Amino acid sequence: MPVNLAPPDKLLPVPGISLSCLAAGIYKNRRDLVLIELAENSNVAGVFTKNAFCAAPVTVCKTHLQTAAIRYLLINAGNANAGTGRKGMENALRCCEMVAEQGACLASQVLPFSTGVIGQQLPMDKFSAAIPKAKTLLSADSWNDAAETIITTDTIAKGISKQIDIDGQTVTITGISKGSGMINPNMATMLAYVATDAKVEPDLLQQVLQQAVETSFNAITVDSDTSTNDSLILMATGQSAAEITDANINLFQQAINEVCLHLAQAIIRDGEGATKFVTIKVTDASNADEAKLIAYSVAHSPLVKTALFASDPNWGRLLMAVGKADIENLDVSKISLWLGETQLLEAGEPAASYTEELGQMEMAKEEITIRISLARGEASTTVWTSDLSHEYIRINAEYRS
Amino acid sequence: MPVNLAPPDKLLPVPGISLSCLAAGIYKNRRDLVLIELAENSNVAGVFTKNAFCAAPVTVCKTHLQTAAIRYLLINAGNANAGTGRKGMENALRCCEMVAEQGACLASQVLPFSTGVIGQQLPMDKFSAAIPKAKTLLSADSWNDAAETIITTDTIAKGISKQIDIDGQTVTITGISKGSGMINPNMATMLAYVATDAKVEPDLLQQVLQQAVETSFNAITVDSDTSTNDSLILMATGQSAAEITDANINLFQQAINEVCLHLAQAIIRDGEGATKFVTIKVTDASNADEAKLIAYSVAHSPLVKTALFASDPNWGRLLMAVGKADIENLDVSKISLWLGETQLLEAGEPAASYTEELGQMEMAKEEITIRISLARGEASTTVWTSDLSHEYIRINAEYRS
Repeated sequence: MPVNLAPPDKLLPVPGISLSCLAAGIYKNRRDLVLIELAENSNVAGVFTKNAFCAAPVTVCKTHLQTAAIRYLLINAGNANAGTGRKGMENALRCCEMVAEQGACLASQVLPFSTGVIGQQLPMDKFSAAIPKAKTLLSADSWNDAAETIITTDTIAKGISKQIDIDGQTVTITGISKGSGMINPNMATMLAYVATDAKVEPDLLQQVLQQAVETSFNAITVDSDTSTNDSLILMATGQSAAEITDANINLFQQAINEVCLHLAQAIIRDGEGATKFVTIKVTDASNADEAKLIAYSVAHSPLVKTALFASDPNWGRLLMAVGKADIENLDVSKISLWLGETQLLEAGEPAASYTEELGQMEMAKEEITIRISLARGEASTTVWTSDLSHEYIRINAEYRS
Repeated sequence: MPVNLAPPDKLLPVPGISLSCLAAGIYKNRRDLVLIELAENSNVAGVFTKNAFCAAPVTVCKTHLQTAAIRYLLINAGNANAGTGRKGMENALRCCEMVAEQGACLASQVLPFSTGVIGQQLPMDKFSAAIPKAKTLLSADSWNDAAETIITTDTIAKGISKQIDIDGQTVTITGISKGSGMINPNMATMLAYVATDAKVEPDLLQQVLQQAVETSFNAITVDSDTSTNDSLILMATGQSAAEITDANINLFQQAINEVCLHLAQAIIRDGEGATKFVTIKVTDASNADEAKLIAYSVAHSPLVKTALFASDPNWGRLLMAVGKADIENLDVSKISLWLGETQLLEAGEPAASYTEELGQMEMAKEEITIRISLARGEASTTVWTSDLSHEYIRINAEYRS
């Protein structure tokens, strides 16, 4: 039950990128495999999960990104190829080889991605049958299909396109993402792919991506669980005449930030069982780290999340969640708290203007902003999360059955 | 729905302690106020929540424990007196004064405790009417009644008595606790009271309590949320002829540890919505801190907890939860994992002996042990938790309504 989310409009082709989507049979009755082809001389940047038990394809991606000019991405849904040991690593590499055979490139020029159940080996016979077919179906126009193909427990496809003008040249940016549960700040989305036809040098591309991720995918949480497969890829084909340099980087950075923020927020709006889209702003903190600690302490609290689900202005739970964040010398007599425009706490005291009716009015909304001022500095942060509902339990208690 | 928990047997009186329980009207139709009287010359130790937004009574308790010989404890259920600002502090102190007036002692010799909804002021008229009556009902025999009176969302009363022989003298220890949700490791229970008739010097008493709490109340979690009101009190009346000294401290410490562990585990067995009692052992860690980080990473994971609720041996989620714990240089190729006696992972590889049937057999049990060997040191830890069920959501989405 996504919060105010619609399927993406027609996503714009990105010159230099073609895609194909098909049903390899990993799932029973739906498409589950995407092949993406990049024009020669494209540059690719990536950010990956920090989970120590990262999936085999994540390890392969990190290696291949360092050593080769990437030409293909192969993405499967339905199986995460995580917790699969040496055999899982062999299978991820074998997938790259199979794509390389079709694409007349090196296996190291292929990036593999998997998402789905952890702990099962990939059905390799299905990959060997599907990959040659995938090569024949490549089309510049398949972004919407790809957004639909990579989802697992998501209820809706996620994507956005954007065009900006750089030095008189049109630059296209198209991005897709998937994710709904096992969503957590430490490189958060499960999978996201953003492509542009701008020319961007590899180091600059990685730098742009790192900056964009901090305020988007690293600022969301559904359930505090960090996936083993999180991968975010930024591809620049250089097919446009626009070249990104220090002189025009800000415009490009802002566009990438906006695309990443849209894709990250779309994951929260489609969070497993989500009935609310919740923005948590912590302001006037000593530094960004403590602001983020408090924001996530609130965003992860099961008791705050169940109160949000119940539309219950049980603001004592907000105090509890702020207070448990283990911040040194936190002076609660300075803290103020708002639910939307309604003040709950004023310098540590219950706000005189607060009424239960005002609280209920704010909590009844589908989009809720919680603002916490610490009154001890200049730093601030914003984090997005969803509520915790019966549907979350149902989805995750039934996922494998 | 407690996991295998029965109400306590008849709890033994502790010489030097009398208690009374009555319905002050904070709740509609049940007892909600306990007064405990301690004999003169009793010593009292306490451990309290580390939540920065700690409740007014917690602040008062900490002060009174430092300055006075405690004679009374006043405990109410139904209202936490937390998030109540200066007025809440005045009310907590006024409660102490009212008890002191009845007990002919100083207000600073009274410890106040509150548990229940956060953010509402105490109904002081109900306290002023009930406290004089409470003084007239004191009895040595009311421990079971007290255990029932202090509960809130608990489904069952929690208590234990124990007698040990020290230097030929019988020492009695009786303890009660309450707690079910908002249960988290940072001083975990909401409220617990343990009393003994042994003679124990104040510093030694505090030291015994600190040691007991580490492996009991600081080793449990229901939902990762730390209450604003957590309080654990150890009282020693000295009415027995047994005096605790360096020579016999080990026996006494062990008995207090056992009582605290029983009371802490009882909270997990009665965890909100709990259908499983889960023991998480992390062994062969470099140090106790990393062992505890990993144990809690697993214990707090909503995806692990919903898999436990579903009795689903979805062990990939265990890997995910171990891997996300952010341990430096964690070598996953050394990690082994067991569910009960069934091995899931052997030095980072899926265990050859594992079958889905074995996993399902282990997961079907009501009491489940998850064992994680890191193979990188000598340290170990054990943590107890419950699963995450529909009932948890129902309880916490409906709590105030």
